[in-house]
Amino acid sequence: MMALPAGRTTGISLTDAQRLAWLRLIRSESVGPVTFRELINHFGSAAAAIDAVPDLARRGGRRIRVASLADAERELERTAALGARLIAVGEPDYPPWLTAVDGAPPLITVRGRSETVTRPSVAVVGSRNASIAGRKFAMQIARDLGEAGLAVVSGLARGIDAAAHGAALATGTIAVFAGGLDRPYPAENVDLAERIVDDGGAHLTEMPMGWEPRARDFPRRNRIISGLALGVVVVEAAHRSGTLITARSAADQGRLVFAVPGSPLDPRAGGTNRLIKDGAILVTGVGDILAEIEPMLGREPTAAAVAEREAPAPMTDANDDDRSVILEALGKAPVELDEIVRFTGLKPAVVHLVLLELDLAGRIERHAGQRVSLV
Amino acid sequence: MMALPAGRTTGISLTDAQRLAWLRLIRSESVGPVTFRELINHFGSAAAAIDAVPDLARRGGRRIRVASLADAERELERTAALGARLIAVGEPDYPPWLTAVDGAPPLITVRGRSETVTRPSVAVVGSRNASIAGRKFAMQIARDLGEAGLAVVSGLARGIDAAAHGAALATGTIAVFAGGLDRPYPAENVDLAERIVDDGGAHLTEMPMGWEPRARDFPRRNRIISGLALGVVVVEAAHRSGTLITARSAADQGRLVFAVPGSPLDPRAGGTNRLIKDGAILVTGVGDILAEIEPMLGREPTAAAVAEREAPAPMTDANDDDRSVILEALGKAPVELDEIVRFTGLKPAVVHLVLLELDLAGRIERHAGQRVSLV
Repeated sequence: MMALPAGRTTGISLTDAQRLAWLRLIRSESVGPVTFRELINHFGSAAAAIDAVPDLARRGGRRIRVASLADAERELERTAALGARLIAVGEPDYPPWLTAVDGAPPLITVRGRSETVTRPSVAVVGSRNASIAGRKFAMQIARDLGEAGLAVVSGLARGIDAAAHGAALATGTIAVFAGGLDRPYPAENVDLAERIVDDGGAHLTEMPMGWEPRARDFPRRNRIISGLALGVVVVEAAHRSGTLITARSAADQGRLVFAVPGSPLDPRAGGTNRLIKDGAILVTGVGDILAEIEPMLGREPTAAAVAEREAPAPMTDANDDDRSVILEALGKAPVELDEIVRFTGLKPAVVHLVLLELDLAGRIERHAGQRVSLV
Repeated sequence: MMALPAGRTTGISLTDAQRLAWLRLIRSESVGPVTFRELINHFGSAAAAIDAVPDLARRGGRRIRVASLADAERELERTAALGARLIAVGEPDYPPWLTAVDGAPPLITVRGRSETVTRPSVAVVGSRNASIAGRKFAMQIARDLGEAGLAVVSGLARGIDAAAHGAALATGTIAVFAGGLDRPYPAENVDLAERIVDDGGAHLTEMPMGWEPRARDFPRRNRIISGLALGVVVVEAAHRSGTLITARSAADQGRLVFAVPGSPLDPRAGGTNRLIKDGAILVTGVGDILAEIEPMLGREPTAAAVAEREAPAPMTDANDDDRSVILEALGKAPVELDEIVRFTGLKPAVVHLVLLELDLAGRIERHAGQRVSLV
């Protein structure tokens, strides 16, 4: 067992009113994690943003639905009824490494032990139609990681995910859901999911209670799996497997990518062998993982905070001329925000505001590196 | 099919008398490839060295047996009777990449087509107790290398070696023997060995006709397998497998090392996964090999020639004082030759001569990088 840092206990908790406002804002139409952050930065608080959003969206060209206070209160009740809780980025129980991820969810729903969620962790993922050898290896690795004091993160899928969770029950494992926490998926792993919580592990999601996971929610969920963890171990994955999306997320997030090799004649090793060729660390035992993870322990991830401000936001307004100049500067290819400021000669605050309008109206897409493009 | 350079046609052929002298010298007791080169460098020719060797060895402290002219003639006859021939380093038919190897055999015996032996080649080696999947993959790789115009080198062992030779029969394959060419090993691959020659491939060895391979001849043979080739592909190998010696030789010789990954639960992949961790190139198909080999084609290896001189060697002599000073400078740990020259203050030619005496008397061992140690 390594000497591991205790779960982080810094951070500021939201008031009940703030939590409700955060929940309303993130559950509003067209508001994703990046837009959420932009809104808080611009308006100073979720409550102020909620007031501003309908007008902003209308100026962008569309009416959007803002989540009502009643909606948010109902979600809080359902969350509490399941024994779960909502944790905001920046709060002490929010997983520290997830905070550092671009597009980290402003709010997550967690059921289970907080200590497991804030502990250093490693993700173990792989094919659903895994071989017996692959599942066996996933179990061995998960058990060894647990014994080394690390939480094991995975996606509750059948195959490698289930094997990893199962072998790490005793030491703490985190299942990240693609839907609401009251919608465990797949059905065959509902019992496993309950045991995870019973044994001191946790469930975690960014999706609202009652949300049935759709196909497109899984890649989105995968970024949380990799974002929670110090590294991702891919045990078996075919070429073009969904698991590789998690590996890609991990690399984009600056996390370590580990892959377990296999015979070139085994299609289930096609993806992992490819990952190794592309620079992933070859794993034949837990030692290969611990050798890389150990130097990262104790280091705190650096993250841009999403902190509400006491002071009201400075009044900025944009006129129709500003809007048309900015629209002209945009295209299908992503452009940097700084580029738009330079090109238009407008104040950064005005550009931010107009982009928020267009964003809420669903007319632009946000990309990594503060870049935007027309939809 | 890649555009490959034709087999090298440069180099100077020995006269019949020179070839006999070379053969006598290399077949003499205590004369290995490194000592052979030292002797030619010192005495100018094999014939002159043969005259000097008995005295040298006696001054080193031991009598050694020099191969007689009759011995050499008998070997030439047996070689010709098998349809084989002796090729000296520097001659046009000597494999060009082998020339560049430290300790390249001064003479090799070759049976089969010269063009195959001088063509660019890749070695495919692996476990004797290979899995079916391993043999299948070796066949696929050997076939693909052959189609790309490369000769396939291996060691005629059962398992991976036999699979690689078998799949490359049509395109040309080279079996390197650990014993004499009239002593194919193992017995079960005698038929395969004949087909190799019948189909335009070749057998190659540095050992004399009639030599039964002993266990210690195999590692020695493995340096020729890797030395012949531009790279070595290890298909299956357990931890501490003999195959890894070939991979090690390849790395020491500056050749590319390729390894085929396998499941960590498969002991036959233990060695190959280790090689990949240590920097070998992961292979899942021939493309991984060709991508690295192609840039090497057309490049000629650089090698220190072993050329006989017309002029007689300058007369150098060492006295007993020189000998005792040099012996004092030596120890169990390898020392560089330059170091000995500096330490003793003697002329380099004198140091070379005394080391030759000690070498022939079996009292010193030669190491890479012109280093020697006391036995």
